[in-house]
Amino acid sequence: MTGTHGGDWAGYETEYGFLPLDFSANISPLGLPDGVREAAVQALQDAERYPDPLCRGLRTRLAERHGIPAVQIVCGNGAADLIFRICRVLRPKKALLTAPDFGEYEQALREENCEIRTVARQEREGFLLHWEDLAENIRNAELFFLSNPNNPTGLLTGREELRKILKLCRDEHCVPVIDECFLDFTEVSETESLIPDLRQSPNLVILRAFTKTYAMAGLRLGYAICGSAAFAERLQSAGQPWPVSNVAQAAGAAALQDDNYVNRLRALISGELPRMIRALTALGLRVIPGEANYLLFFCEDGGLGEKLQKRGILIRDCRNYAGLTEGWYRIAIRSKDENDRLIHMLGEVL
Amino acid sequence: MTGTHGGDWAGYETEYGFLPLDFSANISPLGLPDGVREAAVQALQDAERYPDPLCRGLRTRLAERHGIPAVQIVCGNGAADLIFRICRVLRPKKALLTAPDFGEYEQALREENCEIRTVARQEREGFLLHWEDLAENIRNAELFFLSNPNNPTGLLTGREELRKILKLCRDEHCVPVIDECFLDFTEVSETESLIPDLRQSPNLVILRAFTKTYAMAGLRLGYAICGSAAFAERLQSAGQPWPVSNVAQAAGAAALQDDNYVNRLRALISGELPRMIRALTALGLRVIPGEANYLLFFCEDGGLGEKLQKRGILIRDCRNYAGLTEGWYRIAIRSKDENDRLIHMLGEVL
Repeated sequence: MTGTHGGDWAGYETEYGFLPLDFSANISPLGLPDGVREAAVQALQDAERYPDPLCRGLRTRLAERHGIPAVQIVCGNGAADLIFRICRVLRPKKALLTAPDFGEYEQALREENCEIRTVARQEREGFLLHWEDLAENIRNAELFFLSNPNNPTGLLTGREELRKILKLCRDEHCVPVIDECFLDFTEVSETESLIPDLRQSPNLVILRAFTKTYAMAGLRLGYAICGSAAFAERLQSAGQPWPVSNVAQAAGAAALQDDNYVNRLRALISGELPRMIRALTALGLRVIPGEANYLLFFCEDGGLGEKLQKRGILIRDCRNYAGLTEGWYRIAIRSKDENDRLIHMLGEVL
Repeated sequence: MTGTHGGDWAGYETEYGFLPLDFSANISPLGLPDGVREAAVQALQDAERYPDPLCRGLRTRLAERHGIPAVQIVCGNGAADLIFRICRVLRPKKALLTAPDFGEYEQALREENCEIRTVARQEREGFLLHWEDLAENIRNAELFFLSNPNNPTGLLTGREELRKILKLCRDEHCVPVIDECFLDFTEVSETESLIPDLRQSPNLVILRAFTKTYAMAGLRLGYAICGSAAFAERLQSAGQPWPVSNVAQAAGAAALQDDNYVNRLRALISGELPRMIRALTALGLRVIPGEANYLLFFCEDGGLGEKLQKRGILIRDCRNYAGLTEGWYRIAIRSKDENDRLIHMLGEVL
């Protein structure tokens, strides 16, 4: 049993005996907001009770935040939980993915023995997605997953392009799941979100996570906003009744109170991102100009990850992403000091 | 969306505006152990990291506790998570259950579109289970769930009877899942557990939970001990990679350090159980003499639950258990004072 995702600090600790500086998981470098920590500690007082299976309090706050009725919102044990529940509920015979994209879509579809058609994002076209490529391949697909910004490239698919994709999905009776888990890190989280489109798109599902934005990956909390209350109810009923711990529910509700945190987070990322693109490029690496809190780059040296590991730094080796090969790596944007350490180490190693 | 299980305090709070005294969920009345609370608070320091997907630290301690290799142990987001993962991995065409029994077995099997054959535990036979009844019905069943002690009756199936059932399952190529989630509350948890049988029963799966024993239902933590490492690996791989939060992992590891807690818990239950059986019987109720931390009884008044609800007390209406009817109720054993309050209220209402 070994980990194949980013963030496997425990595997590292087992092998090396200490914790690495982890650039392999794309988590907010600001850490858990104080109010969230306090709410989580407080929630431990009620840990002897089962969690509210319907997450009523948290969903009410999410409804206010997004201007979407609570009956269209379903909370999960991280966004990954919802990806699996969506596949379980729809049990699609055929689905459409792009590559590279977040690996759990494929994992969850495989559990349903689904046939997967994959549209490659071509490096020579800058890994950008064109709706025409999907149009050629969407026939008979019942489910389509897309991360926006894309994981691992960090590239955004613009809203106009996405609306063409939504129309395509509607015409083909395909459920589009747009994963906006990293959208909060970008400067365009308001203008590029598809949440306003939910009203006219009953089959649309949008995924969001607290995990990354509020640095609570350990607590597990994500949610789906559905175009229809009926689909939300099906999602809610899939799997066990109590997927979200009471601590995660309380932490999420507290996080929504802290607007300032996300503003500080965006300021940090938007300052560090161009600086890191320049620094990586200056080291001779081919960097994809992503807009999220992580960067994908290509390095001729396919052993880069191991060399950094020995120096106490974890980065994400992306060779197991469909559509990528040995030599592709992803790094998270962390604090200025930590980013400097990474650049320094990269300079030493390369 | 409404809850159909015990412990739906949130639904109650929504309707009544205050929290009930909850006898509907079978949780340790001693509350979260102090050491567990401290470990959980400590774990919040690491909440920005993904949880260890393989729960390495916790599984190592569980392995020591039970004398079973860690590779045969899988942790889950509550035992309910593991029930669903077992069904998902095996995807049985046909399964065998007894009735009444914990409702999630049926839910999880239904998600796989499994045909379910049910052996009724007859009230006239004291709801006891006979392996001969299973022998008549097990043909072609690929999966068999059994809670021991049984939920909701609290009755134990003796180890000799269980061994006959294990043999039957082996002969019929049926996977037996023995749910020992409430066994820790009984006086016979060591002598009646099937854990020693795992060595000779590669297809056996035993479920255990921290949820109930250590009053951490809100945190969600259960585990499966499998007769084979290969099956454990299949379970581990089913569903999302990070089902168990880092807080739950830390809480579980701390709980295993506190032997005294379980001793105090058993002393409390073994004192209160006969007292409550006598008190309920004295009120004219037909009580099933269970041995766990809850009691099932029959009351001619099918509106008993609602009447108590209006007085701020939740009990578990068991009419939605297969094999039970209106009039069957389950109560948890709580502290002496709380139990007295329940008896007092029952006296008023009846």
